[in-house]
Amino acid sequence: MSITTSFFAIVQNDLLEVEAIIRAQAEGYHPDLGSALDHLLSSGGKRIRPSLTLLAGRMLGAEHHRLLTLASAIELLHTATLVHDDLIDGSLLRRGISTLNAQWSPGATVLTGDFLFARAAELAADTNSVPVMKLFSHTLSEIVNGEITQLFRSRCKLNRQDYYDRIYAKTASLFRTSAYSAALLSPVEQETQDYLRQYGYEVGMAFQIMDDILDFTGKEDVLGKPVGSDLRQGLITLPTIYFIENYPNDPGVVQIQADGCLDNQTQVSRLVSAIRSSDAIDMARAEARRFVQRGLDAIQCLPPSTERHLLEDLARYIVERDL
Amino acid sequence: MSITTSFFAIVQNDLLEVEAIIRAQAEGYHPDLGSALDHLLSSGGKRIRPSLTLLAGRMLGAEHHRLLTLASAIELLHTATLVHDDLIDGSLLRRGISTLNAQWSPGATVLTGDFLFARAAELAADTNSVPVMKLFSHTLSEIVNGEITQLFRSRCKLNRQDYYDRIYAKTASLFRTSAYSAALLSPVEQETQDYLRQYGYEVGMAFQIMDDILDFTGKEDVLGKPVGSDLRQGLITLPTIYFIENYPNDPGVVQIQADGCLDNQTQVSRLVSAIRSSDAIDMARAEARRFVQRGLDAIQCLPPSTERHLLEDLARYIVERDL
Repeated sequence: MSITTSFFAIVQNDLLEVEAIIRAQAEGYHPDLGSALDHLLSSGGKRIRPSLTLLAGRMLGAEHHRLLTLASAIELLHTATLVHDDLIDGSLLRRGISTLNAQWSPGATVLTGDFLFARAAELAADTNSVPVMKLFSHTLSEIVNGEITQLFRSRCKLNRQDYYDRIYAKTASLFRTSAYSAALLSPVEQETQDYLRQYGYEVGMAFQIMDDILDFTGKEDVLGKPVGSDLRQGLITLPTIYFIENYPNDPGVVQIQADGCLDNQTQVSRLVSAIRSSDAIDMARAEARRFVQRGLDAIQCLPPSTERHLLEDLARYIVERDL
Repeated sequence: MSITTSFFAIVQNDLLEVEAIIRAQAEGYHPDLGSALDHLLSSGGKRIRPSLTLLAGRMLGAEHHRLLTLASAIELLHTATLVHDDLIDGSLLRRGISTLNAQWSPGATVLTGDFLFARAAELAADTNSVPVMKLFSHTLSEIVNGEITQLFRSRCKLNRQDYYDRIYAKTASLFRTSAYSAALLSPVEQETQDYLRQYGYEVGMAFQIMDDILDFTGKEDVLGKPVGSDLRQGLITLPTIYFIENYPNDPGVVQIQADGCLDNQTQVSRLVSAIRSSDAIDMARAEARRFVQRGLDAIQCLPPSTERHLLEDLARYIVERDL
């Protein structure tokens, strides 16, 4: 499946408008904020969250201008969280482009993230929907709470529920909001809104599991970071959880279980290779597909439409993509 | 005037409820967020912004529960901005209590501030007023834009308009919103809302000018920082602006005009003493009083009421206070 020929094609013009709306958020403010926003937008990104919002809102009859505003709010909120994440993680590159914190002082980076949060909230308020505003600000609380939980968590200590809680906060929360908020803006019943809410949640969970799989299976030049970088940083994701369950006698697993972590980089590299070539990858992918299937099920009783089929394509793309 | 016997007295119980609402914002989230919020609230503060909101809303007949929610949103937004400010400035104490960044990592401090922004936005959304939500998020944009402008500004380069722009963004913007948003929640006409908006702006400008005067005239043990600390950090405020205008031949002024700044701490200390004992202080205080008078004028045509008189007391207190 080519992503440019299916679900992105129908929203491509809308996405250009979304980008223009986001760029306009720095107008009338300090010029360096405009430069920062241009730089952040130039790094591209899949724009999968606003695409989801746009498809859901088109399907359900949301007013077009409000929908564009909402999609812009969603993508800008996502961008703002990345600015603070990269600062906190000390990441110097994202999608092959230097991060803001690689160029600016920590203070300027914190404030730029704050500014983007504020402008995203203004865009959300511009939808003139109180339920959207509540959902939007609650989503930010959930995302940040997840990050704080991860920051204060002991390295390498994790069970499967912790993992699901973490990927919910990190990714599925905003995916759910991307779909649900579009439904909240649409002239449809609560039941339909709930279907979209469920769809967004399931697709978001699948998206993050696939990200965690690609961290093992992706090519370094496509990922823009070393293979297995999550595990190298002490972050246990679903492939590692399956591997630990399946191979309790693997020397790396034994040491993780005993010491709580692997600090020797040679050992970590060996474990990363072992996980890459094990059935743990396929098991994680199967789990991602189960989430996608639940996402498809959630919207199957909606009337057939171009947009519904494209939302289905989008869900399937999540687990087929290689970046 | 004793602040506990006039305008604070009538809103004292409301302020206790506001504090309880703010504390409750961490419930159900990571426990360290609760500790952080308790610590931030324990440092006290004058709670002048929520008092202003409460008095204005009571006067104009705002629904009590929504008014409490709004006042909580305002104070929490203020608290969130202080968390990031103190981190960026490297401040270790505020109101005699250690700042969050004095105890926590920069990353945890950034995320705690983000969390408080998110919860403040949720509280604002809980007022169920789209105009309040728009105003609230726009105010955050203005505050942060002001901080970025200050951060990127050359030290000691300032004219009077820059100063007024800066104190508007830093303080008057949120004061204006504190009064105006209460009016937006009230069953009153646009004209009355505009009076409150004007009042909040003028009182906020006066408040910041007085803060800048107290930085020169206050006692170190009350301020909790060295006298003249703004100027020591290269920040030119209204007393210094008047002094520069009145005493162009003062050796400190000559050097500021020539080199853009004073780096020798002995010279700065001499200049601080010179400003303290000069007429520049009285001129700055007279300017603050002019703002207060415009604030009083703005609400003078409202029907007389206990709350209106207390808002007048609050405005006068702004320029009489010594901390």
